[in-house]
Amino acid sequence: MSLPELQQLAAEIRELILTTVAANGGHLAPSLGTVELTLALHSVFDFSVDKIVWDVGHQAYAHKILTGRRDNFHTLRKKGGLTGFPKRAESPYDAFGVGHASTSISAALGLLIAEELKKTFGRVVAVIGDGALTGGEAFEALNHAGQLKKKLLVILNDNEMSIAKNVGALAEYLSEVRLAPRYQRAKKDFEAFMKSLPLPDIGDKILQAAHSVRYGLKSAIVPGTIFEALGFTYLGPVDGHDIHAMQDIFSRVSVLDEPVLIHVHTTKGKGYAPAEKSPEKFHGVGKFDKATGEIFKKPSPPSYTEIFSRALVDCARVNEKVVAITAAMPSGTGLKAFAEKFPRRFFDVGIAEEHAVTLAAGMAAGGLRPVVAIYSTFIQRAYDQILHDVCLQNLPVIFCLDRAGLVGEDGATHHGVFDLAFLRTIPNMNILAPKDENELRQMLFAAVMRKFPVAIRYPRGSGLGVEVEEVPKNLTWGKAEPLQKSTGAEVSIFAVGSMVSVALEAAELLAEKNISANVVNARFVKPLDTELVESEAREVKILATVEEGTLSGGFGSAVAEFLADRNISARLLRFGIGDNFVEHGSRAELLELCGLTAEKICNRIVEVKNGQS
Amino acid sequence: MSLPELQQLAAEIRELILTTVAANGGHLAPSLGTVELTLALHSVFDFSVDKIVWDVGHQAYAHKILTGRRDNFHTLRKKGGLTGFPKRAESPYDAFGVGHASTSISAALGLLIAEELKKTFGRVVAVIGDGALTGGEAFEALNHAGQLKKKLLVILNDNEMSIAKNVGALAEYLSEVRLAPRYQRAKKDFEAFMKSLPLPDIGDKILQAAHSVRYGLKSAIVPGTIFEALGFTYLGPVDGHDIHAMQDIFSRVSVLDEPVLIHVHTTKGKGYAPAEKSPEKFHGVGKFDKATGEIFKKPSPPSYTEIFSRALVDCARVNEKVVAITAAMPSGTGLKAFAEKFPRRFFDVGIAEEHAVTLAAGMAAGGLRPVVAIYSTFIQRAYDQILHDVCLQNLPVIFCLDRAGLVGEDGATHHGVFDLAFLRTIPNMNILAPKDENELRQMLFAAVMRKFPVAIRYPRGSGLGVEVEEVPKNLTWGKAEPLQKSTGAEVSIFAVGSMVSVALEAAELLAEKNISANVVNARFVKPLDTELVESEAREVKILATVEEGTLSGGFGSAVAEFLADRNISARLLRFGIGDNFVEHGSRAELLELCGLTAEKICNRIVEVKNGQS
Repeated sequence: MSLPELQQLAAEIRELILTTVAANGGHLAPSLGTVELTLALHSVFDFSVDKIVWDVGHQAYAHKILTGRRDNFHTLRKKGGLTGFPKRAESPYDAFGVGHASTSISAALGLLIAEELKKTFGRVVAVIGDGALTGGEAFEALNHAGQLKKKLLVILNDNEMSIAKNVGALAEYLSEVRLAPRYQRAKKDFEAFMKSLPLPDIGDKILQAAHSVRYGLKSAIVPGTIFEALGFTYLGPVDGHDIHAMQDIFSRVSVLDEPVLIHVHTTKGKGYAPAEKSPEKFHGVGKFDKATGEIFKKPSPPSYTEIFSRALVDCARVNEKVVAITAAMPSGTGLKAFAEKFPRRFFDVGIAEEHAVTLAAGMAAGGLRPVVAIYSTFIQRAYDQILHDVCLQNLPVIFCLDRAGLVGEDGATHHGVFDLAFLRTIPNMNILAPKDENELRQMLFAAVMRKFPVAIRYPRGSGLGVEVEEVPKNLTWGKAEPLQKSTGAEVSIFAVGSMVSVALEAAELLAEKNISANVVNARFVKPLDTELVESEAREVKILATVEEGTLSGGFGSAVAEFLADRNISARLLRFGIGDNFVEHGSRAELLELCGLTAEKICNRIVEVKNGQS
Repeated sequence: MSLPELQQLAAEIRELILTTVAANGGHLAPSLGTVELTLALHSVFDFSVDKIVWDVGHQAYAHKILTGRRDNFHTLRKKGGLTGFPKRAESPYDAFGVGHASTSISAALGLLIAEELKKTFGRVVAVIGDGALTGGEAFEALNHAGQLKKKLLVILNDNEMSIAKNVGALAEYLSEVRLAPRYQRAKKDFEAFMKSLPLPDIGDKILQAAHSVRYGLKSAIVPGTIFEALGFTYLGPVDGHDIHAMQDIFSRVSVLDEPVLIHVHTTKGKGYAPAEKSPEKFHGVGKFDKATGEIFKKPSPPSYTEIFSRALVDCARVNEKVVAITAAMPSGTGLKAFAEKFPRRFFDVGIAEEHAVTLAAGMAAGGLRPVVAIYSTFIQRAYDQILHDVCLQNLPVIFCLDRAGLVGEDGATHHGVFDLAFLRTIPNMNILAPKDENELRQMLFAAVMRKFPVAIRYPRGSGLGVEVEEVPKNLTWGKAEPLQKSTGAEVSIFAVGSMVSVALEAAELLAEKNISANVVNARFVKPLDTELVESEAREVKILATVEEGTLSGGFGSAVAEFLADRNISARLLRFGIGDNFVEHGSRAELLELCGLTAEKICNRIVEVKNGQS
């Protein structure tokens, strides 16, 4: 394809992305930023033989469109349709599935080693954003790849953003590199200049002085010194919207037999003015009006995120020890308000969940009350730090885990359905889930008073619209809340967080069938309110647990353990997510799929009661 | 104290460390290497006010001795005695508990922020080895600290080793820095030299040329360019056994109001010839003869590690797709033999468990059969990668988790007791535990034939001394092994891995009391052999599960879930580790403490049978 043809194609792809995301929602700004990069890569490499790994994968829409998925691109993020991220099962061109940040260099290196050992010798490319580069795993991979000296190509897609403005010393460093006026004049220019000096012995002396810090010399003339130090040949920055320039550099690099990092400078949201102007707003976005950039908002109660945001500010006002930490998501987690009110007590560490948690542990050891706000799915990255740094020392760190449960369209990589189960394995941990947004506020206020680790997990999206108390009622620690109770009830349903309202509905449906059901808001997954579990279990025929999380080791599992240990024979029905990964779809569709609707819960209870299973 | 006094003290401390470790076992070489560093730090800082975080903490014996623990240093690593690592509960001088690598900079930064916000303004120091620096979390912390520009002091204790010889591009880089002949001649020398040039305008031109790559200039004259790029002021290298030189640099640095990294060059095992010669052997060591350096070895059957080592080589001989990955522990994990036989198929990634796992996922996606050999406690670091990169894509990666269960003297940070529980939460994962060393070989051979993720976990130390088959018998996937079965048995014990032999003993004790017990080797924690669990549960009065792992979510929990789901009412007794952290002691002492001995299991079963509980 000629350059004008490629530019024409870029415009068409951009239009398709824009139209589709306006209708379906999705990761707009990242994918608009990489259209030219994707075309340049596909025109130089042959990804039926070569392999590409997109870090996170939210920038890979153009790649999907170019690899046989143009015609059904309109199904993006819909149940049964295309996923929002590269996925091996979806296309042979998706060499490695992604979703969480900072994995691409590791995976690409693995693929490259496989190519070598199999003697198939395909080339392998990793594309990683400057945001994802702040994740430690990316550094581990650079360090390893730099030593192996294999022919790995890493494209640094530098748009000065992770989701929000990128942070960290490395971001500052990259910005200095970008600003350097003569970055293309590398080694040879400098050496030629030295040799052209009128007094040769002075030139020599200088070279010698420079050589005396051998590594320094290398760095003096190549701007990507940090990557050079890690064993990579650094090239760039190159304009990430100049297809020709990228084709040129990618072709040249193909002949190099060493690890190379090409620094590509792109604009997030490129080509769509509203997204260029507000790349964070259009990073991951719901449906919007393509013409105006106005994001459609159904009138709905405030989200859990918003309630958390306000509650934290209110906590921090009365307790100056409260500090807050986010891993590159000040908006998504609702910490922006806190950051504005208390800038010295707010810390955005970049995409670095491990550091976030140990940093919090250090702060807590120093007497502060850190609140770590990270999505449920991403806190998986810090299991060891939660265990080894926080809980082993029983330090008062509060984890606020937003997007817990099924998140919907982002799919399998992003559901926050494992937290209850993996956190429950850790001694000293306390795990809470609010039944509504008011209880979230209560829980946060209660947690701040405690001297031990606490995790509060709550779902994506709107609260129930209940009234939110200014002064939150006190919660009795470790106690569940009986919501509905009648003597002679045959069923008792213990529900966790988001499932409490569903359980109440299920109880109504049961009542219509003349089955009387108690409903308990579990509140605490750990410690379990064993007293109430025991008394309910001894009273009713069927004890049910309902949680928006995996059944393997989750809340229902804790109840099963307890009943077994106390030798309480009750019929236990556990509702939750089975031992499999859940794909994408709307939250409602997925809850239905997992049997987590009032109707399905009711029906199953009726079946069991009637002895049909 | 005068310098000669400090040197005298260093000799005394070294002698005490040597004597104690020779008697108790422990981390000798790392702690011998930091005696002078510790003295220099304690003579410049006041750690009753200032704070120090030792990365991993295996180098902190001198620190313990200097902070009120000299008199009971002989209790090191003994039950009820001093722990092998810094621990907050043990001393106010231990500002932060450690054990796993790469946490110190994060924790120190947290402590520093706390000092600032509390306005107590203590200084904070992190000491991190070049090995631990390969862990991504350390990079995340440097990146954050470099941006915050707070007065954090990081000491890079560079001994060219992690546990084995350090690997990675960063290690090569540090070695170049060390070899640079004039590393102490920094910025000022260079600038002075420039200005002294006879033709000022040439000097200017050079400066200008250098400035044109602004960052490069900085790097040209300072060898620690990579740290400078991350926002740290780099100083060094300085001789880590020259107390005076270190005192000098530490004092000067105290006045700088910015993040500083001081590169200290030490010799692992310093002052004890056998350890200097074989620092890896004396990294963590059992009892030995101080005079000769001969390590005492009780005659014992080959260890699980040795059997794994041989089995992997045998697998790799017949299957050329088998590759192996270690995270800085080629010896500890038994991969050394593999590395020697198949150097191109062996990968030591440094202390980088996250990268290790995603690398393996990439290799598996490329058609290889990677075996990741990491201790159980350290694989906690890669929970997300196992879930998101391996299991979500159902890739055939084999995890060989050595040191699973209670590891003994290394204590709470090192017990591998959570693996069964946290791995069980992950869909597609298969979890196996061999009852003896022969079964370990069988399991590895069986795993290599599978096309999905498999984890095999086995304990520290010797096998049972059983015969090891050359050609391993085939294992039926997902099936447990009934070992002892009698009609009319009242009890059935399902035991996992290391606990199978204990269960057999318990059954013997029960037989002495005329209680007939079946014994089942569970083999698979996931998938659970539900058929056998069901048939046994329906036959006996008491079903017992025994595992060397946490009860919260572990194997017994899986059985409880299953019994509940199938509505099988059996009395279930779960033996394992309670919901608390287990401290250090001998493995036998700790098993006793956790109730995991034949006698305790027998007694509890008898109690329950007699209705006493």
